[in-house]
Amino acid sequence: MDVKVEALKKHYEWKGKIEVVSRTPIKTKEDLALAYTPGVAEPCLKIHDNSELSFELTRRSNLVAVITDGTAVLGLGDIGGLAGMPVMEGKCCLFKEFAGVDAFPLCVKSKDTDEIVRTIELISDSFGGINLEDIAAPRCFEIERKLKERLDIPVFHDDQHGTAVVVGAALINAAKCAGKNLSDLTVVINGAGAAGIAIGTFLISLGIKDLIMVDLCGIINRDESYDNPAYTEIAMKSNINVKKGTLADAAKGADILIGVSRPGLFTNEMIASMADKPIVFAMANPVPEIMPDDAKKAGAYIVGTGRSDFPNQINNVLVFPGIFKGALSVRAKEITEEMKMAAAYAIASSVPDEEITPENIIASPLDRTVADKVAEAVAKAWKA
Amino acid sequence: MDVKVEALKKHYEWKGKIEVVSRTPIKTKEDLALAYTPGVAEPCLKIHDNSELSFELTRRSNLVAVITDGTAVLGLGDIGGLAGMPVMEGKCCLFKEFAGVDAFPLCVKSKDTDEIVRTIELISDSFGGINLEDIAAPRCFEIERKLKERLDIPVFHDDQHGTAVVVGAALINAAKCAGKNLSDLTVVINGAGAAGIAIGTFLISLGIKDLIMVDLCGIINRDESYDNPAYTEIAMKSNINVKKGTLADAAKGADILIGVSRPGLFTNEMIASMADKPIVFAMANPVPEIMPDDAKKAGAYIVGTGRSDFPNQINNVLVFPGIFKGALSVRAKEITEEMKMAAAYAIASSVPDEEITPENIIASPLDRTVADKVAEAVAKAWKA
Repeated sequence: MDVKVEALKKHYEWKGKIEVVSRTPIKTKEDLALAYTPGVAEPCLKIHDNSELSFELTRRSNLVAVITDGTAVLGLGDIGGLAGMPVMEGKCCLFKEFAGVDAFPLCVKSKDTDEIVRTIELISDSFGGINLEDIAAPRCFEIERKLKERLDIPVFHDDQHGTAVVVGAALINAAKCAGKNLSDLTVVINGAGAAGIAIGTFLISLGIKDLIMVDLCGIINRDESYDNPAYTEIAMKSNINVKKGTLADAAKGADILIGVSRPGLFTNEMIASMADKPIVFAMANPVPEIMPDDAKKAGAYIVGTGRSDFPNQINNVLVFPGIFKGALSVRAKEITEEMKMAAAYAIASSVPDEEITPENIIASPLDRTVADKVAEAVAKAWKA
Repeated sequence: MDVKVEALKKHYEWKGKIEVVSRTPIKTKEDLALAYTPGVAEPCLKIHDNSELSFELTRRSNLVAVITDGTAVLGLGDIGGLAGMPVMEGKCCLFKEFAGVDAFPLCVKSKDTDEIVRTIELISDSFGGINLEDIAAPRCFEIERKLKERLDIPVFHDDQHGTAVVVGAALINAAKCAGKNLSDLTVVINGAGAAGIAIGTFLISLGIKDLIMVDLCGIINRDESYDNPAYTEIAMKSNINVKKGTLADAAKGADILIGVSRPGLFTNEMIASMADKPIVFAMANPVPEIMPDDAKKAGAYIVGTGRSDFPNQINNVLVFPGIFKGALSVRAKEITEEMKMAAAYAIASSVPDEEITPENIIASPLDRTVADKVAEAVAKAWKA
């Protein structure tokens, strides 16, 4: 099967991957009177009296917006929101399929951060949560931060936090498999875009003490001054030994090497220079930083990628459906660090300890039992 | 059945009247590869090359936004968008049930006209059409006008044009029933809000020559000067004989008296003073300007209301599902006067001539055959 050809053909057939349906039949005058006028006035007045009832009397309680500005769609870059809509629709299908959460795709035709924020803010009453998607760094940081300040429903930039949580889950089990403690690990992340920085920040939350971020400029460290405020921030929180140099320098002696960067950036020499039982997550898509077979040959003990055709597919579809299902179930006003950590541990525990092997550190993205476990853990972790 | 109690109970049970579902199962790696990554990149790139393909490769071709600012919800007034959402959801159910058109409810949390326009503009790529709903006059005029200027998808304020079209349809058959020509009729409309002015404007399109608009200030006429620009505009287009005075003065000798105003405003004396075979559309909801029995006793030949418990229910559910279905089917860039006229005639012809009686001038709102007839007529009337 040629995926490109077949996918395009299917998209022409589907005429949209999502559909909006009615949850109540309207066949009789009575149906009309209850679902529409005059009966509908009652729930309207109740919500007018108490806005929280919008979570009882409309679909809001189970409804997430999947919103993009189209500036960083897949690996395609800034193709615009309209062109990004097939991805948003696909994401909405995943929400529904894996967690029963209704999700609706929206694209915002603006590249002005404040305008995007304001637009989302103004329509946010229509939803129970906002999943930001495929928005380029650094604007994604500001958009998410401002929305979190202004809205009292969960706002979650999946490319950052979904990725961070699933990498965290994979790392928990990988460390277990290699017989190492999280707090003893030296973790190197290559690529300090939205995903890389979110992963780094989250791994620190998970208890990683020695974290080194690397970008095109080399190892990020607090002695350097950066134009990008996200670099300055992560520099202060990471690299406790103020290491300097290249990716190869960083890899030397590291326990874990994570790539959210570009194909081919990890070399055999880097892997060979790592600590005992090297763990490599090469997540560039579709072509990873190093191919799993090469990494293994170079000495890697555990290899994970974003691909479904190798073991250990590290895919955030394990994260976002359950995160939102859990958050919506307790009417959480935000998604806290504790909720993300609970999600990571729930995903990790989906592979029982006795089944963890170097080829099986993380559940399949198609494992339909994970979302409910995540939802339950996330709901418990929310303390309003 | 107490409709209020039962409707509220049902709304608690439904937990939302709409639902977003997936049109494609995602059970296997292949499903995921086609509907999501990596296959989804292909339709994205196609749309990036040719934005019109968004109508082929996403749900846009069958998807309408139902948008309110909550300033004029039902007869409840300015209760805000959030509280208006049960109405928007109900409307979306009607779109789906009667025309198979997907509709998604949105509320905009702003009362600033330009901000509302900009917000809708920025998300408009997500939809194939925009149905504006329950927005107060006069801001509804400006919002609709600006959106029509800026968007190349249909924008339709249903409270104005849906109402106008269904009243037009009822009037076509009522005139036929009374044996009168449209061009000979004197039509009086009481209430010059959004619906009243839209009805007046549309009836002129349908060929009514002698149209008189009445509001609290009396008969609207071109000798008067008005603060409200909509009054000035309709004054120039209507009342060719420059009549002045009260509603009672206007009713004298009129063929048709239409109320989109308030309960009880039509008196027996007004009906008695009309021309031969008086036609009365008393559309205030839920309590009409005059009760049908009273109007009949006072001499009315035909009476229509907005209510389902009397003959001749004049309800715009006969209009909007078919209008959008037709417009979407031909990828119309707007809804033209010709399309609205075609819709009115299609609705009128849903009651065959031989079945038209004073008690049967318009199809039941629950007649599921009307939307397709309207859609077909509307599609034909669109000439790009």
